[in-house]
Amino acid sequence: MVSDRLKRLGSTLQEKGIEHALLSSFVSLRYFTGYKATVELEPSPITPLLGAFLWIRGEQPTLYLADMEPGEGIVGDVLRESFASYIIERPLFAIQDLSAKIVAKLRPLPASKVAIEPEEIPAALLDVLRSECLHLEFCPIKDVLSTFRMVKDAEEIETMRGALALCDLGQKIARQLATPGRTEVEIFTSVRAAMEVEEGGRVPIIADVVSGPRTALTGGPPTGRKLEAGELLIVDLVPRHLGYWGDSCNTACAGEPKKEYREAFDGLADVLSDAIAKVRPGFRACELDKLVRTGVAKLGGSYPHHTGHGLGISWHEEPRIVPYNNIPLEADMIIALEPGMYFEGRWGMRLEYVLRVTASGAEVLSKYRHEL
Amino acid sequence: MVSDRLKRLGSTLQEKGIEHALLSSFVSLRYFTGYKATVELEPSPITPLLGAFLWIRGEQPTLYLADMEPGEGIVGDVLRESFASYIIERPLFAIQDLSAKIVAKLRPLPASKVAIEPEEIPAALLDVLRSECLHLEFCPIKDVLSTFRMVKDAEEIETMRGALALCDLGQKIARQLATPGRTEVEIFTSVRAAMEVEEGGRVPIIADVVSGPRTALTGGPPTGRKLEAGELLIVDLVPRHLGYWGDSCNTACAGEPKKEYREAFDGLADVLSDAIAKVRPGFRACELDKLVRTGVAKLGGSYPHHTGHGLGISWHEEPRIVPYNNIPLEADMIIALEPGMYFEGRWGMRLEYVLRVTASGAEVLSKYRHEL
Repeated sequence: MVSDRLKRLGSTLQEKGIEHALLSSFVSLRYFTGYKATVELEPSPITPLLGAFLWIRGEQPTLYLADMEPGEGIVGDVLRESFASYIIERPLFAIQDLSAKIVAKLRPLPASKVAIEPEEIPAALLDVLRSECLHLEFCPIKDVLSTFRMVKDAEEIETMRGALALCDLGQKIARQLATPGRTEVEIFTSVRAAMEVEEGGRVPIIADVVSGPRTALTGGPPTGRKLEAGELLIVDLVPRHLGYWGDSCNTACAGEPKKEYREAFDGLADVLSDAIAKVRPGFRACELDKLVRTGVAKLGGSYPHHTGHGLGISWHEEPRIVPYNNIPLEADMIIALEPGMYFEGRWGMRLEYVLRVTASGAEVLSKYRHEL
Repeated sequence: MVSDRLKRLGSTLQEKGIEHALLSSFVSLRYFTGYKATVELEPSPITPLLGAFLWIRGEQPTLYLADMEPGEGIVGDVLRESFASYIIERPLFAIQDLSAKIVAKLRPLPASKVAIEPEEIPAALLDVLRSECLHLEFCPIKDVLSTFRMVKDAEEIETMRGALALCDLGQKIARQLATPGRTEVEIFTSVRAAMEVEEGGRVPIIADVVSGPRTALTGGPPTGRKLEAGELLIVDLVPRHLGYWGDSCNTACAGEPKKEYREAFDGLADVLSDAIAKVRPGFRACELDKLVRTGVAKLGGSYPHHTGHGLGISWHEEPRIVPYNNIPLEADMIIALEPGMYFEGRWGMRLEYVLRVTASGAEVLSKYRHEL
């Protein structure tokens, strides 16, 4: 629930000795207000930022949202205000309007600290706040927020089941269409169209769809390349549903797979299921990474990428399942595991499921089954 | 040509008394390097910015690009360097790595001015540059760049013809599918799939697909709503092709249109063609806005949005065809004109073509024809 997150934000800031917060990253806006942003494309030419979330201790928090944003999903705990990003009566002035509104709220505060996300706030905005509010200290809290969303609440888990159901549908269709003569892009458009009709609306999606020797590259966007008989096809589908991302990856063969592919596929599937069996609270991200990486090495393969990652309101977040990360798993973290193996210039393969860490193990949330 | 743009950047900065530039907006990265960025989604959770373009007088300019970006399209004039956004050996540190690389280039410079885009540079990055390079002054050049790309070169015009051909294809299919019983999202997925198969790859697209009373809202994303006989359907398609945006809008009727719709449609089409006939160098954006707005008013309608806008490497740029804008049109500007009329709670309609200003008039680049 958003209201619980807001309480947690308040207590986290208090522990750090920080009174207030002004958050401007896309994920923070969504996480702390419930806003199901429609953004699906590159940065807007009209406003340098979608909005800003102002949390002042003891007051109702406010989401300042660009005037063209519909604001769907914002919860009752959060006040919504607009700033003018584009009106036909005058030149663009999003930052001027937004900064003036925030300054009006910040200036009356006593000397205090305001948490900010320095990588996600445009210098133009922060410059105004600093020069107009000399009594305030703006403090980075990036590290706190990067782990803030790791453990999912019941509402998030439910929404993510929906995102993963879209993955299941997409993987089913991709597997059916992985036949000689079809192009990567034809497969992709069919997959996405099915998801969008199912969703009754647009589905933002990140996707690797690579075939033949392109599979050795680990991924890439779909092209007009035609599948030939016996070739591999990696399909990694990452769709967004109600603001939450799913993830999934299967490797299929167009026609009869040769023995080398079959053995690699079965081996990878075993490594993945062995890893899932080991997942439980307390097991560290780096241990899980090592387990999977070692398993793949025993098959004679390797992968240059992470073993997995958290996901939710962002398609890639903590806990990252990588060698350096000693974060211990906790119940209700949701993670993707995606071992692969790649042979330069020849072929590659990857299998991925998403799972929820439970009190005693893991629940696999992906319902499609890997099928070569 | 990118090399001409770079020369023009140099002379523009010189006029302003600025020695160097560090540009970080998505559009600047593409415009000054040729990079056909693949970004299609919301801000990346891995790097707060795609890259930064460093132009130091007398040196070869450098594009610093996040390590996961493929770099397709970068021209020979520009040096490409990577910064580490995500590697599995250590936590995310894009800004640290990027800022260290830029500081290493800036620090040896004599005292001078560096142009920046303050709305498009994260405070975290600029803070480092300021504290490490006290001898440099970082100067905003937003206003210069907002009009810098207005007049298109031959290469851009050619690429935009390709983007508009995608629009033509999409509008043709949308018109065919505008029949009772189909949903907005079904029409959208068919349109996009055809574009992507034609393109042989993914096509980023912004789109309004609204039917029935939703047309009165001016636009919105496609939903599962089914068209009923005699209802209107607004389809506004804005696809990207090789880094350049097309634009287009038609309003169709599912089945036989009633007299009111037919008259409004014919009237709007006349207003649009009258306006196109008036376009020529020297005619001001605000005059064009007034002409179209007055024409629609005579039909008994009105629209709350702009009359049109420039487009290119961004889907919305100068010259904006709006009441306040007194920029005179120039040859080889490319503009979209999109008069509409909307009646709250009832229905709405919009027709749009894209045209190139020529030495003596306008060439309509859109080849599809409006059809109710």
